[in-house]
Amino acid sequence: MQTTNSSTLVFSRRWHSLSNALQDRGLAAMILNPGPSLVYLSGLQFHLSERPITLIFIPGKDPFLVLPKLEHIKTLDLPYQLNTYLYDEEPTSWQAVFAQALQASGVNGKRLGVEPRRLRLLEYGILKKAAPEAEFVNAEESIASLRMQKDGGELTAMRKAAEIAQNALLNTLPMIKVGVTERQIAAELTLQLLRNGSDGEIPFAPIVSGGPNSANPHATPTDRALRDGDLLVIDWGASYQGYYSDITRTFAVGTPNKEELNIGQVVYQANSTARQAVHPGITAHQVDQAARAVIDTAGYGEFFTHRTGHGLGMEGHEEPYIRTGNDLILKQGMTFTIEPGIYLPGRNGVRIEDDVVVTEQGVESLTNLPREVQTLG
Amino acid sequence: MQTTNSSTLVFSRRWHSLSNALQDRGLAAMILNPGPSLVYLSGLQFHLSERPITLIFIPGKDPFLVLPKLEHIKTLDLPYQLNTYLYDEEPTSWQAVFAQALQASGVNGKRLGVEPRRLRLLEYGILKKAAPEAEFVNAEESIASLRMQKDGGELTAMRKAAEIAQNALLNTLPMIKVGVTERQIAAELTLQLLRNGSDGEIPFAPIVSGGPNSANPHATPTDRALRDGDLLVIDWGASYQGYYSDITRTFAVGTPNKEELNIGQVVYQANSTARQAVHPGITAHQVDQAARAVIDTAGYGEFFTHRTGHGLGMEGHEEPYIRTGNDLILKQGMTFTIEPGIYLPGRNGVRIEDDVVVTEQGVESLTNLPREVQTLG
Repeated sequence: MQTTNSSTLVFSRRWHSLSNALQDRGLAAMILNPGPSLVYLSGLQFHLSERPITLIFIPGKDPFLVLPKLEHIKTLDLPYQLNTYLYDEEPTSWQAVFAQALQASGVNGKRLGVEPRRLRLLEYGILKKAAPEAEFVNAEESIASLRMQKDGGELTAMRKAAEIAQNALLNTLPMIKVGVTERQIAAELTLQLLRNGSDGEIPFAPIVSGGPNSANPHATPTDRALRDGDLLVIDWGASYQGYYSDITRTFAVGTPNKEELNIGQVVYQANSTARQAVHPGITAHQVDQAARAVIDTAGYGEFFTHRTGHGLGMEGHEEPYIRTGNDLILKQGMTFTIEPGIYLPGRNGVRIEDDVVVTEQGVESLTNLPREVQTLG
Repeated sequence: MQTTNSSTLVFSRRWHSLSNALQDRGLAAMILNPGPSLVYLSGLQFHLSERPITLIFIPGKDPFLVLPKLEHIKTLDLPYQLNTYLYDEEPTSWQAVFAQALQASGVNGKRLGVEPRRLRLLEYGILKKAAPEAEFVNAEESIASLRMQKDGGELTAMRKAAEIAQNALLNTLPMIKVGVTERQIAAELTLQLLRNGSDGEIPFAPIVSGGPNSANPHATPTDRALRDGDLLVIDWGASYQGYYSDITRTFAVGTPNKEELNIGQVVYQANSTARQAVHPGITAHQVDQAARAVIDTAGYGEFFTHRTGHGLGMEGHEEPYIRTGNDLILKQGMTFTIEPGIYLPGRNGVRIEDDVVVTEQGVESLTNLPREVQTLG
């Protein structure tokens, strides 16, 4: 269990909020499989595997959990009561155990909330068979709306995740020079993330992309060696107590050309403008437009090919999405990235990404490494 | 793309086999979302995210792929033809792009294979709406039956993944002694996995469990410091070109007591007996029983709480599952773990896990670190 999630008080507060959100939607229960929402509600960490695990949260009742016997030990020291239903290694026996749990929980015939981005056909098939009269409804928003607004313990973990990632990059910078490959930099950065205190499972393998590869926003590190005049995009993050950071900085290796200096400056302005635009009451769309306007005005609009940012917390990508058309109103405690970019195919790219939290009055950046394109080597 | 998957020949061989498997089941197509089966068939690596990505494989046709525009660059340098359908950042536009792709592929009204352990309600909902007359059928076995039998390139990668993991442990052993915590050992082992050449995304965070924690087969490393007389279970693996190793060794710290020596010896015998039983033509059930018989005879049957092993390859757990009741006949090229264990709640536990491949005549262990419980510190 994560220490940030470990107190009885934290869970009862979250359960109370979820109960309200479910009642607003006329839902009798929330059904979760392993993943961040289940951790958020229960503190229980399971891998998503070939063995289905399901939590049934019903307002006012002790939660129901169906799980394999060999995971039972994880449920023995919880700060709350739980109804557990255990199955053994023979898959043909699982359906009956699920049926028993759903019967006892009384959810058959009711409207039940699920997360379509998490729930697999595996669990869905079993649940439908176990509660044939139930209606399964997309209730992603009901739990996302809680998870978006971080509490104090969560923000402390995210600040630490940002600090770990920043220190890891500072320890990696000295090795970066002409001739070093993307893969070598990525390996050193990963080592430094762990050495600086990241959880063992880092949020994602670092993106390190030099020269023309920097024009691919989702590049995988290659054996290409850095050359004089390259731009170098590094996108990396740490995990601390299950909470993530996700940062991007762009560097110039040797002597950048005029185009590189120019797009570096434009993206820096877009990042600054969008960050400073954030405050409670503004919409995600408006923040996206703030970044986009800077890049459009500079004539690079068509080369900013992705949204301005995404929510960040226990997931690398979560709500709120900072994109055109998202009218969600930002509130205090919401955490997300601001990461405008310009990608010139076959030539080069720049992205500058910070992690921010909406404060009572405005915004705080959890990340504070220098943002302008710096020259290395 | 992974180098083991990069040749045109590899893909055409896999497509040919899958076409046969689909025809046997009367299926018109296989539908895949990001994950190992998609990598196996296409070489394309995507993260499972809030943006749905779907590959439609139809015998005799170029595959269809629906994906976000910002991932398009990954498909530009493939050793085969692909029909791509791209969508942009606005989620309300996605359904129409999927509808267009499914229309062009002609799968509506047909029987389509899916993987329920991979496909989420997110993709399923979109696909059902885009092809309302199609029937979606569990075809997990059709692709698992191919993936189970590794080819030469895959086995080379798995041998390397085993070697990296073993070297990482050897480099970690010197630090292990009374007073060191599970978390410290896990951090060092993770560093060593990367330093020895593991892919950045290791298959799973190492399990390091000492003393009473060793009685939990799925323990998470804690701040508990090792004490004299502890058993110490270490379960770890490396990834090489996307293929995994997964090994467990158990150590005694200081002076083990009689019970510890005894269960160590029983599990060692169970591991050896089950490994040596493997050959083409034996069933998964029989291998499981070979391990179980040794532990039953020694009187610890009820404390061997899990199956004897699981398939291993691009997934940490895949087919074939080495469990009671699985009548699957093992064939040359299948790769899986042999990992019997005894867990005495509140006291201690032992697990000894190797990765093996079925050969023409018998079995080869990809892992060869000493297996008996060794004393450290």
